[in-house]
Amino acid sequence: MKIAVLGTGVVGQTLAGRLAALGHQVTVGTRDPEATLARTAPEEGSDTPVFSAWQAENPQVELATFDGATVQAELIINATGGGVSLAALAVAGAANLDGKVILDVANTLDFSNGFPPSLSVVNTDSLAEQIQRAYPAARVVKSLNTMNCQVMVDPARVPGEHAVFVSGDDPAAKATVAELLSELGWPPSAIWDLGTLSTARGAEMILPLWLSIMRKLGGGEFNFAIARA
Amino acid sequence: MKIAVLGTGVVGQTLAGRLAALGHQVTVGTRDPEATLARTAPEEGSDTPVFSAWQAENPQVELATFDGATVQAELIINATGGGVSLAALAVAGAANLDGKVILDVANTLDFSNGFPPSLSVVNTDSLAEQIQRAYPAARVVKSLNTMNCQVMVDPARVPGEHAVFVSGDDPAAKATVAELLSELGWPPSAIWDLGTLSTARGAEMILPLWLSIMRKLGGGEFNFAIARA
Repeated sequence: MKIAVLGTGVVGQTLAGRLAALGHQVTVGTRDPEATLARTAPEEGSDTPVFSAWQAENPQVELATFDGATVQAELIINATGGGVSLAALAVAGAANLDGKVILDVANTLDFSNGFPPSLSVVNTDSLAEQIQRAYPAARVVKSLNTMNCQVMVDPARVPGEHAVFVSGDDPAAKATVAELLSELGWPPSAIWDLGTLSTARGAEMILPLWLSIMRKLGGGEFNFAIARA
Repeated sequence: MKIAVLGTGVVGQTLAGRLAALGHQVTVGTRDPEATLARTAPEEGSDTPVFSAWQAENPQVELATFDGATVQAELIINATGGGVSLAALAVAGAANLDGKVILDVANTLDFSNGFPPSLSVVNTDSLAEQIQRAYPAARVVKSLNTMNCQVMVDPARVPGEHAVFVSGDDPAAKATVAELLSELGWPPSAIWDLGTLSTARGAEMILPLWLSIMRKLGGGEFNFAIARA
């Protein structure tokens, strides 16, 4: 499948690398490819270009602009920061999004007031619904946003059965995402189809709890599970 | 321990009955005891007084006004509806709350616009923090709000290990609540102390997801668990 992964951070890199390893034709989309290739991580004391170093190890993944990545894609993954997702998709443009599955894995976490963070979209709306309203001809599915990206692409890192939630209004689009989840290693019983896209509100709203647990455990190697009678 | 359970609904009944069975001296608090004793459930086609029938099976539990229930209590459980909790506590009065542990199990779910419901306090605040601000000399602990009340008082109904979250600013109050959870059957490893009371925001925000899962399963016999590496 031709997949565009929007976002060059660790979530985008992790998803792109794993999907390419599974045989998909993956293009990472960014606002300015030259800036992305030059970007270093001075806050981590490194002057090595971060994305360039990653791409050297993942040469089968291409880098393009948001519109260049999406124009040929059959499925688009939104792995940009939730606060800039709508702006990124606007650069991609409706013509490149219409009719396509958009798998939205982003969260609108706002740490500007410290911990606990707040969500910039919450309660009576969700980022996933905002994207769907902005691109009514696209088929938005929310999933994978409730866990660390290493767990997204390799659920067996966390022992036992744990959950990945799926929300969306288009059954065929949800089936496409479920197939992708299966390829990533998620067993059918771990995939929880919550219903319509409005249920993405609930999936987005567990991020503050996720972060409290992450702080307590000192890392993201965990996931929510549903214990049931 | 002398415990006041505020709220005469199914959550209050379930907690009061179980805590009395464990040997605690439990008083249920309500705004108007006579009205509570007379209340029927016509929407369920019943003209049997609901609380009176319950109390007949739980004769060791007393019924009193909010202030009558709290004046002697060492620990107060807020099991009123989240939308009316502050009003109920105001009737109890600061003099009856100061210095005491308030275990807040309530949620501010608002179904007035259908499903999914919204929360009337959310994101940058929580009901637990509102109660703490209103009664700064009380010691508020949020816990047990993330599950069905049958699971609250009998976690073994749901197989496997699953989680109960605890948030609060007063370590001694959290220890008192943890002891109560232990009496209810929660093993120590299932009790997740998330940190300060501000982490109650996260615990309150998972209710919409809880409700989506409840609808999917057709009942509340489940709970969130944390799977970890």
